[in-house]
Amino acid sequence: MAPSIGKISGFPEWLPEERAVEEEIIRRIREIYVSHGFTSMETPAVELLSTLRSQGVVDKELYVLRRAQALDEEEADLALHFDLTVPFARYVAQHYNNLHFPFRRYCLQKVWRGDRPQRGRYREFYQFDIDIVCREEVPLACDAEVVTVMVKAFRALELGDFQLRMNNRKLLLGFYQSLGLDETKAREVVVVVDKLDKIGVKGVFSELSETLALSRDISQKIVEMAELRLSPVEFKGRVESLGISNEQFTKGVDEIESVLRLVPGDLQRHIQVDLSLARGLGYYTGTIFEILLSNYLDFGSVAGGGRYENLTGQFLKHELPAVGGSIGLTRLMGLILERGLFEATKSCPSKVLVTVYNEEQRNICNERAEELRAVGVPCEVFYKTAKLGKQIEYAAAKGINFVLFVQESGKTEVKNLHSKEQLEVEDIPTWATETFKH
Amino acid sequence: MAPSIGKISGFPEWLPEERAVEEEIIRRIREIYVSHGFTSMETPAVELLSTLRSQGVVDKELYVLRRAQALDEEEADLALHFDLTVPFARYVAQHYNNLHFPFRRYCLQKVWRGDRPQRGRYREFYQFDIDIVCREEVPLACDAEVVTVMVKAFRALELGDFQLRMNNRKLLLGFYQSLGLDETKAREVVVVVDKLDKIGVKGVFSELSETLALSRDISQKIVEMAELRLSPVEFKGRVESLGISNEQFTKGVDEIESVLRLVPGDLQRHIQVDLSLARGLGYYTGTIFEILLSNYLDFGSVAGGGRYENLTGQFLKHELPAVGGSIGLTRLMGLILERGLFEATKSCPSKVLVTVYNEEQRNICNERAEELRAVGVPCEVFYKTAKLGKQIEYAAAKGINFVLFVQESGKTEVKNLHSKEQLEVEDIPTWATETFKH
Repeated sequence: MAPSIGKISGFPEWLPEERAVEEEIIRRIREIYVSHGFTSMETPAVELLSTLRSQGVVDKELYVLRRAQALDEEEADLALHFDLTVPFARYVAQHYNNLHFPFRRYCLQKVWRGDRPQRGRYREFYQFDIDIVCREEVPLACDAEVVTVMVKAFRALELGDFQLRMNNRKLLLGFYQSLGLDETKAREVVVVVDKLDKIGVKGVFSELSETLALSRDISQKIVEMAELRLSPVEFKGRVESLGISNEQFTKGVDEIESVLRLVPGDLQRHIQVDLSLARGLGYYTGTIFEILLSNYLDFGSVAGGGRYENLTGQFLKHELPAVGGSIGLTRLMGLILERGLFEATKSCPSKVLVTVYNEEQRNICNERAEELRAVGVPCEVFYKTAKLGKQIEYAAAKGINFVLFVQESGKTEVKNLHSKEQLEVEDIPTWATETFKH
Repeated sequence: MAPSIGKISGFPEWLPEERAVEEEIIRRIREIYVSHGFTSMETPAVELLSTLRSQGVVDKELYVLRRAQALDEEEADLALHFDLTVPFARYVAQHYNNLHFPFRRYCLQKVWRGDRPQRGRYREFYQFDIDIVCREEVPLACDAEVVTVMVKAFRALELGDFQLRMNNRKLLLGFYQSLGLDETKAREVVVVVDKLDKIGVKGVFSELSETLALSRDISQKIVEMAELRLSPVEFKGRVESLGISNEQFTKGVDEIESVLRLVPGDLQRHIQVDLSLARGLGYYTGTIFEILLSNYLDFGSVAGGGRYENLTGQFLKHELPAVGGSIGLTRLMGLILERGLFEATKSCPSKVLVTVYNEEQRNICNERAEELRAVGVPCEVFYKTAKLGKQIEYAAAKGINFVLFVQESGKTEVKNLHSKEQLEVEDIPTWATETFKH
């Protein structure tokens, strides 16, 4: 039986033109990460099952590994990582004595989740994270830097307007405390408030007052709070006018204010304080944020992050605090390709095709190509002798705009397929530098 | 129970300084691949088990995936890929109508093998491949280009002298035919000859004549042939002087000669025709090669490749021929780190640390950092206010050579930690461009 070559649902792969877009996205994000001194770090795709389970992951999402003919028990202990944070924590704990703190790393790796695949959800996908982990308290300057880097990255992507929505878990918990709700109840409320975009104000209100049996007054206050989307400038005044007197709440407000003050002025317009944002109330302990593309709010967030006080508690005797952010690269790619947000036309990096009239001149053609490469211009020499029309067709199909001809006289000519212009080139490096410099 | 954070045998991970070396290695290889117009391509880490098994892989090396709580049968069909060639074949077959041929791609991905880990052998490792696949016959110019690109890549790595050992399967089979050996016998001979480096001439001779029961005369001829290591210049004359009259053999000789003629002159000195090279006589059908570092011949090959006439026969109705090469990146990294072939001192990309005297000046420090980033200099601002000595220590530990001070007067000074020189900087972009341009 011939093996099936059908697409495996949830495991995306891109055509060369699409991969070129992904590479450009990666290049722009990485450039921002590196410019802030974040260092590249990778871990194996595989961790001990006990490592992954220590973080309370839902078991059914884990992909466990075993050798097709397992010889021993060892392999049953391995699984593919489902995020980059747990491996990061394990890495920091394991190499603690060989790292310099604050340890600032970026990480671009695939993760795997045995989720049911659906739009924007994959079983294998890239995440592109940064984190700063400290040996002692993480200053709010680090939260501000992570937010700054994330905003700069999305600005560099040029995918249209975007919003970084920010909140603070202390503010949230303090607010719920001030209403007399305990943490269990607060978590239930957060789940409901998270649905605001989907079920609207009325829906949230009725779930709060009916399903959760909160008073109309409290439900009303929660809804009002959740609806607040404040610019950095209006934030403090508006929140103080709520008249909430709670220590946690005030601490949260101060933290947001401190972070905002440290984000460069020209980036502030991308930031919105969103008092409904909770990000699941998981391990985050202070700043939380997520990023959405303004034209595709219904797609949900394409990046997120925050501060967590205890990165390594499971692996080290002492807790290490951290702050970080994660871009859902594959998720973002899905949106970019679906909506054509980036031109996907080049199926190869070559900028010039060197044509070949006959096999005797191939070495000369190779030499011309080397002259181009020497000045940083990727190019290729046509692989065989064929009619010129065929060779030009190949260049056009691949998105190679320039075709170079080495005449028998030794003269070199180059044709711009876009403008149809053909001219003699006396000195290849000079021509290439002039043509391809930005 | 606290989860173990012990290293998982066979799944290497690097410290930041080591990862910086790996990134530099990748950058240099990729630059060469891209300069020849190879396009980036990736596939999922996961393939259908039937796809992987179609290539006759040894089952026990496969890592099969299942969800920790599998709900259906589907997952039992998935496994991690064990090389990049089978997924490439599946990709080409699946996307056949959306690719432009010759399709020239490079691929840097991890692969997984449930091997017993040992020196230079990993269970998870990177391969860094190029391949050219054609719709019809692959011209020998493509073999020559792959060889050229591989040699250029290793030259760019500057790991000392290296040898690309080349042979041709037709030459090998023709030679064995001329001795009256059938293909089964020839395969047995190849296995023995492969041990030449380990057991020496006498060892090979006695295995041929005793274990394989070949005549002393034939055994002698095989040993003589296997010992031949010829430079491109001496190849043809020396091989013709053997007086072997066999059509296959002659075709193999001609192919080698044609490939050699198309490799640029300045690269020829890295090439050796090695008539003992067989690379397992697997799916290769013509050119075969491998690369060894001259100072570490006992480590074995760090790259290899060749031509195979039937890439896609398992997946498509028609066969597609291809030629390619693969660098064992993780294997190479293991050697580089073990022998210190590359300096691993920088644990972050930052070139400048901007110090902070007090939190009030942090925004000004951030602005100075932005001026550096604007001219392409990665840098970071110290994360908190600490004694200057501490901040300088941090820079030194991370391999950041320049420390910048923003004085209260507004003046900016910069200290070179290596030369101990400290000077005032009037214009940051000018200073940065002068200091960090190559």
